[in-house]
Amino acid sequence: MVYDLIIIGGGPSAVSAGIYAARQKTKTLLIAKDFGGQVAKKAEKIKNYPGFEEISGLELFEKFEKHLRAQSLEILIDEVERIEKDKQGFRVFTAGQKEFLSKTALIASGGEPRLLNVGGEKEFIGKGVSYCTVCDGPLFAKKTLAVVGGGNSGFEAAIFLSKIAKKVYLLEAGPVVRADEANQEAAGKISNIEIIVSAELKEIRGDKFVRSAVYEDKNVKEEKVLKVEGVFSEIGLVPAGSFAGNLVDFNEKKEIKIDPRTCETKTPGLFASGDVTDVKDKQIVVASGEGAKAALSVYEYLKKHQG
Amino acid sequence: MVYDLIIIGGGPSAVSAGIYAARQKTKTLLIAKDFGGQVAKKAEKIKNYPGFEEISGLELFEKFEKHLRAQSLEILIDEVERIEKDKQGFRVFTAGQKEFLSKTALIASGGEPRLLNVGGEKEFIGKGVSYCTVCDGPLFAKKTLAVVGGGNSGFEAAIFLSKIAKKVYLLEAGPVVRADEANQEAAGKISNIEIIVSAELKEIRGDKFVRSAVYEDKNVKEEKVLKVEGVFSEIGLVPAGSFAGNLVDFNEKKEIKIDPRTCETKTPGLFASGDVTDVKDKQIVVASGEGAKAALSVYEYLKKHQG
Repeated sequence: MVYDLIIIGGGPSAVSAGIYAARQKTKTLLIAKDFGGQVAKKAEKIKNYPGFEEISGLELFEKFEKHLRAQSLEILIDEVERIEKDKQGFRVFTAGQKEFLSKTALIASGGEPRLLNVGGEKEFIGKGVSYCTVCDGPLFAKKTLAVVGGGNSGFEAAIFLSKIAKKVYLLEAGPVVRADEANQEAAGKISNIEIIVSAELKEIRGDKFVRSAVYEDKNVKEEKVLKVEGVFSEIGLVPAGSFAGNLVDFNEKKEIKIDPRTCETKTPGLFASGDVTDVKDKQIVVASGEGAKAALSVYEYLKKHQG
Repeated sequence: MVYDLIIIGGGPSAVSAGIYAARQKTKTLLIAKDFGGQVAKKAEKIKNYPGFEEISGLELFEKFEKHLRAQSLEILIDEVERIEKDKQGFRVFTAGQKEFLSKTALIASGGEPRLLNVGGEKEFIGKGVSYCTVCDGPLFAKKTLAVVGGGNSGFEAAIFLSKIAKKVYLLEAGPVVRADEANQEAAGKISNIEIIVSAELKEIRGDKFVRSAVYEDKNVKEEKVLKVEGVFSEIGLVPAGSFAGNLVDFNEKKEIKIDPRTCETKTPGLFASGDVTDVKDKQIVVASGEGAKAALSVYEYLKKHQG
């Protein structure tokens, strides 16, 4: 069996592409490790997906998934490990030992949380070190915590945790935070959030569980120790497209380079969209728009190459 | 008073940009002729805006507008007639004789229905000739009608009208229709829709009201007459960006050329997004994503040029 299109991913871009592809009667298989991408893990309410004034990530993604599942396409929960060029199109291999053949493929696999790369990180994963505030936050009632990363997701994590924890330190390695004004304003009003800039995390220490976080105060070039029982990493994502190998070009951030008008990669018939690509803005509505673009480009490609 | 940003338009791209800009605390004025753009005029339910399995255009746009109005920004219902470069940014002049000054501007004014350019068209506007199926369709109960245009909007108009009218002819000038497969399949199942391809509309005739539509059957190069009491034009949009004059470059379709990564036009500080631009896909979710991109680019521009 040869599919017209295999979509790899389960976030907004993949789901939007799936909806568009199915409506075009493109014979589609969508392979996702799980649904929701980074959206379902968002700590704070989402307020910038047009049409929903305020909605939790989980709730928004339930709507996306329901919308997708109402269409005619196949869905498989599995992880893609490899993709190869084939004379009929592409061969896609999964961790579940399956192999599929398709005329085209769309990589919309988003990103994975970036590792902190400090001592103690791996040792304490699940013992105080977390990459998912909304999943793990509720386990830290009345504790003192550190959030690493002064971008939007760091601020949103700190705001979320401030309602659960006794105290939340937000550490930003640079001299200024990068969150948008609305998030800075919101966090500024919360008394148990303390923002520390020029603070580069150096080590996570503990016994059975995390007991402290060590950072360098770059202003005075001195190491300081915060007594915390949890460290939440919010330093961004690593694009999850490495399985595409040399079928695509990557930029210096490991993002897949695409033609921004069509979502084409350098390999004809292979497309990419959303956070896994070099699209400038990593936003739900942008990723959704890009997924729609990609599916429509696939449709045009299939039309041109049919028969 | 100098705004940070003036957004021109009231469709999905303008509204999405407005939401993003306000959340960034960009001092924003949005000027719209009306709200809803082409979305509110859509004849059929919208099924491809992720998150809403099925929703009317009017309903979806009420949600967009409510979302926008919950933000901190100024909104003016007026029409922009001219925009000029100024040393502080841009001067925007409206039909309502108002003048505004802003550091940046975003043109997200979408499109206007394209004219048929045949004899009788202007004479019978409001007397059988319509550019808004959903507004005017209900006036044509039990009548025989023609829809001009075999793209998605033509098919959706025909499907909508088929429930009201006795009979609907759908005329497509080319040898094949261009609507997506889902729309073709839906229309194919409706007994009172008759699709005629290679049919180029030549004239609209009538007395006080429309009585017939004359088309050339291009296969046999012969003029044919259909007795109809309404002609619904669905031959696409003309981009509504001409007021930008030589501050922007237009392509051969009169679309504003932009950098697809940032939505920048050729004039620094002047941005454009959505259907008024050369973005390939004219879709609600694409226009929304592009609006978000544009607002974020404006934010970066303002940061870089402040002080």
